[in-house]
Amino acid sequence: MPTPAESAVEIAQSLIRCPSVTPLDEGALDALARPLAAAGFACERLRFSEDGTPDVDNLVARIGSGAPHLCFAGHTDVVPPGDTSLWSHPPFAADIADGRLYGRGASDMKGAIACFAAAAIDYVSARNGIVPGTISLLVTGDEEGPAINGTKKVLAWMEETGLTPDHCLVGEPSNSTVLGETIKIGRRGSLTGHLTVTGQQGHVAYPHLAANPVKGIVSALARLYDTPLDSGSTHFSPSNFEVTSIDVGNPATNVIPVRAEARFNIRFNDNHEAGTLKAMLSDSIAATLANTELGFTLDFAPHGDAFLTKPGALDRLLSQAVAEFTGKTPALSTSGGTSDARFIKDYCPVVEFGLTTETIHKTDENAALADLETLTAIYRRFIARYFETFGDGASGDNDGR
Amino acid sequence: MPTPAESAVEIAQSLIRCPSVTPLDEGALDALARPLAAAGFACERLRFSEDGTPDVDNLVARIGSGAPHLCFAGHTDVVPPGDTSLWSHPPFAADIADGRLYGRGASDMKGAIACFAAAAIDYVSARNGIVPGTISLLVTGDEEGPAINGTKKVLAWMEETGLTPDHCLVGEPSNSTVLGETIKIGRRGSLTGHLTVTGQQGHVAYPHLAANPVKGIVSALARLYDTPLDSGSTHFSPSNFEVTSIDVGNPATNVIPVRAEARFNIRFNDNHEAGTLKAMLSDSIAATLANTELGFTLDFAPHGDAFLTKPGALDRLLSQAVAEFTGKTPALSTSGGTSDARFIKDYCPVVEFGLTTETIHKTDENAALADLETLTAIYRRFIARYFETFGDGASGDNDGR
Repeated sequence: MPTPAESAVEIAQSLIRCPSVTPLDEGALDALARPLAAAGFACERLRFSEDGTPDVDNLVARIGSGAPHLCFAGHTDVVPPGDTSLWSHPPFAADIADGRLYGRGASDMKGAIACFAAAAIDYVSARNGIVPGTISLLVTGDEEGPAINGTKKVLAWMEETGLTPDHCLVGEPSNSTVLGETIKIGRRGSLTGHLTVTGQQGHVAYPHLAANPVKGIVSALARLYDTPLDSGSTHFSPSNFEVTSIDVGNPATNVIPVRAEARFNIRFNDNHEAGTLKAMLSDSIAATLANTELGFTLDFAPHGDAFLTKPGALDRLLSQAVAEFTGKTPALSTSGGTSDARFIKDYCPVVEFGLTTETIHKTDENAALADLETLTAIYRRFIARYFETFGDGASGDNDGR
Repeated sequence: MPTPAESAVEIAQSLIRCPSVTPLDEGALDALARPLAAAGFACERLRFSEDGTPDVDNLVARIGSGAPHLCFAGHTDVVPPGDTSLWSHPPFAADIADGRLYGRGASDMKGAIACFAAAAIDYVSARNGIVPGTISLLVTGDEEGPAINGTKKVLAWMEETGLTPDHCLVGEPSNSTVLGETIKIGRRGSLTGHLTVTGQQGHVAYPHLAANPVKGIVSALARLYDTPLDSGSTHFSPSNFEVTSIDVGNPATNVIPVRAEARFNIRFNDNHEAGTLKAMLSDSIAATLANTELGFTLDFAPHGDAFLTKPGALDRLLSQAVAEFTGKTPALSTSGGTSDARFIKDYCPVVEFGLTTETIHKTDENAALADLETLTAIYRRFIARYFETFGDGASGDNDGR
């Protein structure tokens, strides 16, 4: 009988050997369902479609029934390996060398899925298949892609089916370099905008007969850069404005162009909502361009709002499990990029803890075997404590919202 | 015997009927040389070549000898007509309709060349071929093009041949809408620069791990816009900074790019020289980017320096001739784009007076027949007064520099 850590490595290897580059599955969900089903989990495959996006397979595996319902969320799709000749171990071979498991997805996030599956299987088998509530795994093949036919639709299906979780743990890599550094309890919002300033074309020697949109866009963006959005909040760093591109495309150095465009992104904290940010941006740009002959349009891509799972019993018991096996007290953070937690927070409290981000999306992505072992132990302890904390008769301050 | 005005229209028509789109000649210089040679002018054709540019034909026509030497400078090459189907009169037909002569080059500047040729022929024939000095016409086919095998090389040839003019009149269109508004006595300098700011690529959610060159270029350009170069000088408007393009070309709205580029042009007055301007720009950008992790490079295209023909007898007698036939006192201006006067000012005082800029480079370019008649009369009076003013025994404050 393999130890939970041995099982975790074995499951991780079988997942990595499926080249499930988003949106392909290539057998990854089956490779996960197999050991879970053998341990008594009911496995349901959900295939969702939407015009203009690829069809995507998802898996909901669950055992037990009723509350408390702990859900682990993750994804088996991975980003492309890039130039495979640069890898020292083939990206889908799952080679083990120097105490590390190599392969695309080792850290993001097939490794963490395997750790949770091994931990849950061990917990269930230690209790002879009897769970004092529900354990589920919500695993999608659409996190690295458009994220339309994945977690969002699975959650809606779970709600319809009466399977809405009470709490959720996302296994995304949450530590920057060392296991135990960070638990994520929320994420900043994200707003992407597209500013077009239009003026009057003309000869550069006769600027009074023209209106230069480049001057306007430089002034408008400089003003936005010079006006801090806030200075942060209790759980969030300051909101941040970044211009990602400015494009005019005017090859003639003696011509004032008619149009200039900029694209920008704001990562914003809980001081803001997207609607008020949009109005603030529009007002600021209008003020800059007042008393000029320049006009502008401002468009936005669909945004994500900031969210926070208020610190409480859920992160506290996760922190205790982390501290027990790493000796570290993890920071509660809201930094970094987006994850499917942005969908889950609409249904239940959600926290995130997984491997490190050090090699993710890179050549020679890998996970230390020691980290896989530690993470399995952390998840195993967390599951046990979860049911002690939120089970019958227990009380917690994180139960529902 | 046609009047000088009738001759001017006839010569202008024969020039317009040569489709001398730069750098082509298509018989234009011959069409000009023919009536000048018939009136006794010695006509010399000069063909210049340089690697990477088209060969260009030039004409030097002269009569008389010695000082004072009045040179008229112009060009027979024209800009392309664009979509000829949009012209109400074919661009090379030289149709006359509603009191106007239609065709590419009518105002810029075959019309003015024809006016000066007709005026000079009339002056010479009224004096039975005896000129109290020298009248020359320096006409190039390389003004609208790279301006490498044209006026610049003809002037060097004239100097070598002992034919350096004492004064020069350029017939470029100098009036914006009405004949008589403006004499140009100099031009601003022009400096075109290319700024590249480089940073560190990264994810937009982790700006502290990246260095955004777009922020740097916006700040650097905003500072340059916010720092006026000067407030003008006696004969010049304030120097002016225009950014003509900014380009990043980053399609990914979640990525901070590695590089941003800008192109700009400065039209500068006699408060500046190109060298000090370049140093000021470089210092300003370096100051903006100090304490960032951004680097920059700054390159410049070959520049033109500002120049001024100090107001004196030359412009005064031109102004008198203009006032006599238009009733207007022309403004002495240094505004607008560049012309071959930038080469001539290295050899002798130079002023510019021609037709209007209203239709130049446009569809249906034309010149009013009344303006051709008036300009011929102005040039005819100017030639006569020139030799009275600068000839033997006369004194002027514009003789040489």
